[in-house]
Amino acid sequence: MRNLVDLNADAGESFGRWSLGDDARLLPHVTSVNVACGWHAGDPATMRASVELAAENGVGLGAHPGLPDLAGFGRRALALTPREAADACLYQYGALRAFADAHGVPITHVKPHGAFYGLAIRDHSIAAAVVDAVGTVDGEVVTVLLAGPTADAVAGRGVPVAREAFADLDYDDNGHIIIEPNPAAKDPRACADQAAAILSGRVRTVSGGTVGIEADTICVHGDRPNAVDVARAVRARIAAEGATVAPLRDVLAARRQG
Amino acid sequence: MRNLVDLNADAGESFGRWSLGDDARLLPHVTSVNVACGWHAGDPATMRASVELAAENGVGLGAHPGLPDLAGFGRRALALTPREAADACLYQYGALRAFADAHGVPITHVKPHGAFYGLAIRDHSIAAAVVDAVGTVDGEVVTVLLAGPTADAVAGRGVPVAREAFADLDYDDNGHIIIEPNPAAKDPRACADQAAAILSGRVRTVSGGTVGIEADTICVHGDRPNAVDVARAVRARIAAEGATVAPLRDVLAARRQG
Amino acid sequence: MRNLVDLNADAGESFGRWSLGDDARLLPHVTSVNVACGWHAGDPATMRASVELAAENGVGLGAHPGLPDLAGFGRRALALTPREAADACLYQYGALRAFADAHGVPITHVKPHGAFYGLAIRDHSIAAAVVDAVGTVDGEVVTVLLAGPTADAVAGRGVPVAREAFADLDYDDNGHIIIEPNPAAKDPRACADQAAAILSGRVRTVSGGTVGIEADTICVHGDRPNAVDVARAVRARIAAEGATVAPLRDVLAARRQG
Amino acid sequence: MRNLVDLNADAGESFGRWSLGDDARLLPHVTSVNVACGWHAGDPATMRASVELAAENGVGLGAHPGLPDLAGFGRRALALTPREAADACLYQYGALRAFADAHGVPITHVKPHGAFYGLAIRDHSIAAAVVDAVGTVDGEVVTVLLAGPTADAVAGRGVPVAREAFADLDYDDNGHIIIEPNPAAKDPRACADQAAAILSGRVRTVSGGTVGIEADTICVHGDRPNAVDVARAVRARIAAEGATVAPLRDVLAARRQG
Repeated sequence: MRNLVDLNADAGESFGRWSLGDDARLLPHVTSVNVACGWHAGDPATMRASVELAAENGVGLGAHPGLPDLAGFGRRALALTPREAADACLYQYGALRAFADAHGVPITHVKPHGAFYGLAIRDHSIAAAVVDAVGTVDGEVVTVLLAGPTADAVAGRGVPVAREAFADLDYDDNGHIIIEPNPAAKDPRACADQAAAILSGRVRTVSGGTVGIEADTICVHGDRPNAVDVARAVRARIAAEGATVAPLRDVLAARRQG
Repeated sequence: MRNLVDLNADAGESFGRWSLGDDARLLPHVTSVNVACGWHAGDPATMRASVELAAENGVGLGAHPGLPDLAGFGRRALALTPREAADACLYQYGALRAFADAHGVPITHVKPHGAFYGLAIRDHSIAAAVVDAVGTVDGEVVTVLLAGPTADAVAGRGVPVAREAFADLDYDDNGHIIIEPNPAAKDPRACADQAAAILSGRVRTVSGGTVGIEADTICVHGDRPNAVDVARAVRARIAAEGATVAPLRDVLAARRQG
Repeated sequence: MRNLVDLNADAGESFGRWSLGDDARLLPHVTSVNVACGWHAGDPATMRASVELAAENGVGLGAHPGLPDLAGFGRRALALTPREAADACLYQYGALRAFADAHGVPITHVKPHGAFYGLAIRDHSIAAAVVDAVGTVDGEVVTVLLAGPTADAVAGRGVPVAREAFADLDYDDNGHIIIEPNPAAKDPRACADQAAAILSGRVRTVSGGTVGIEADTICVHGDRPNAVDVARAVRARIAAEGATVAPLRDVLAARRQG
Repeated sequence: MRNLVDLNADAGESFGRWSLGDDARLLPHVTSVNVACGWHAGDPATMRASVELAAENGVGLGAHPGLPDLAGFGRRALALTPREAADACLYQYGALRAFADAHGVPITHVKPHGAFYGLAIRDHSIAAAVVDAVGTVDGEVVTVLLAGPTADAVAGRGVPVAREAFADLDYDDNGHIIIEPNPAAKDPRACADQAAAILSGRVRTVSGGTVGIEADTICVHGDRPNAVDVARAVRARIAAEGATVAPLRDVLAARRQG
């Protein structure tokens, strides 16, 4: 049973004329936010606004680089080489960091989005390339990857990695998440139950079995219609389970000491 | 008559499958290079390679942000607001800086590309927004703008600005350059003559008149078919005129002292 | 006082993950619909759905080509040449026509979107190039342009042109509309009043004057938050004024006979 | 041994400022040309020019739809659903057809490009969706797919399909081609040898084996540096083998009769 866990959400997923998510109502419930960087969502004006909103709410600001696929919202797999994956991360991380610097806010973490995250799950050379690239530009920035084989594969490369679990996505028996192209509303209580299961170290899979999981951070999706309700319920359950929601770096520091 | 002048060229203007310019042969002739950042040219792999090439040649590495118009190579005017212009600069500067950081190279300057540069010429609130945005993220980074009314309009904002003149473009009587959508080969000697005129402080215009000009840096375009010959001829003429080609910061320091 | 007038709305302005407008509720109130074609909005799946919806509602299906600017929703001017404007129209018209053909529905009209429409207002060589291009691929397809100098400039080129007025936009003293980057809700009654003024042949301008106007079709914007209410009010007022809402071709046929 | 075979090449692969391929010298050697439609290459001006060039050379004009990936030139796999694949084909086919109509030239065929072609090879539901979509808009237009299991999978759907083989790509033991991201120059004689092998009905594979193949059309790539030499050599060899290069429809008609 973990005592400290970060709670993260995707945000900044609007684009130009199109709005998505209710970031202003969502951010008060989380400790970290992952901001889209222009390739799958998030134009520069949205990025600037997201940085401001993260600063106002005192949450950790993360880059959420995606595949170059606006029409598919970065949720369709694109066959990148590890080098292309690393470069895609650097480009988008750098773009967001300029806005962060302009507002005097640090970037705390980088988390690939959607099918980019999925590439790292299936191809650990992608995960390694991403972790190494991020580490090269800032050794303090944490890369967030799926808890389990993906995160294990890049452990020991000398750069900080956070292991993530999902309160609002299903798992298969490999411990892989099943990405929804277009997230529907979900029962907040079911998501809270899954958060409790994550804290306990074992979650159910779609086949009826379970998989072990050890997570530093729990994700709720910002583009789910009832995302705010889900986040509120998950956060309340974490407290009810006797755990504490904390910034990502504190969670990692506690793990290193633990 | 100026003693010190920087010589800059655009580079990194390939995109994916498409190559443009012969950067490896061009960079040895200049002291600063402006690297495309993905919106009008320059995919991430090209940006990485351009950063490496700039480092190898010991030239000042600059960001060359463009309008979001790959099909038009950033040479068609797009009506941005000053805020949109500032955000476009930050996004692209930041993206390039991530690659620069990964190679341990500083970014020395930012210069808007093509029609983005043209927007700043015609609308000084654009020029001011760009200069302020760049100054906010790094007070040492120099913004390069057209020598004359454009650069004068942003003087005194407390951020470094370099005044630029063009050896290979025509001028009109307002001191504005006439942007070529698709640069053709030009007589290197004519370009060298114009460089000498720039050093003397006065250039001819297309109407047959002249305009006064005081430049910290002289540009030659990297996508002109004979760009290398033009750069070589211009550099030789600068020396023949008794001036010295020097890094942009040295030129600005000398101006401040002079 | 006109007896017949078409009532048109923009639709199909969603893109991938992002929804915009309530087309299913809007289309029953209009006789023509202008469908975004992918450059400023409207991915292929949305285009297919829009064609189906137009067919179900029995409204005239039009192409609504925009500038290549997803981030700006085609509402920022981009300096195209007349040839580029013509090619942009053909490309997008053709893309939509493939979906129309697949559903056995004809394309009745083409109307440039947003700042593309604005280019045609300010530069009549753009309007002429667009009209000629559309006429070359299908002599029956009507091009919709702003009633007044713009439409007058292309009259007599031997291709059908419809003159358009706007119930929900302000006019200046040149008879030009003032494009809103991000349409807000508007009082449906005020829009209905303006529709009545259009039918009478004279509308107020923002300066307090009036301009004469003779329109074949009246537009209401689909991305206004209360677009359905505006369309309903405008349509009711047209009937209350004793005029009849009719398909665009019937309106043009009546004008030719009148 | 086949008597009639079509010879096709990709063309129109420039984009805006960037040129690729020497279409004017290549087209005299082929009977069909596949023109890029804007998603992986080919801006509208290039498409217009390609249609004109096809008409001047009297070759069959085909649409060459690609994945939406300019940076990857459509050579990186993107996970489309069959419906998305069909819509992607229709959109791009329609866009090209508008230019074809404007020049009074018919579109004879559609051939997916690069990794889109690869999707159809690996997932026959993609191949079927593409063939059906093309057939819906024009029952005469031929879809070109890889000879072997891919083309066999869609045989009997009531729409014309041409089976293609590659003179300038390697084969694996499944009869699949090995796509080069960035084609290098190849020995024209080796390509001619492979063309002869294709005519004989059996080609070598990279493992040293052979696979049977029955092709209606043979492809040479337009973006290979020595594409013109390859095309000339292949065409000469076809004649030397006693076969005749003929338009695609003639080849298919002969096959149906044969």
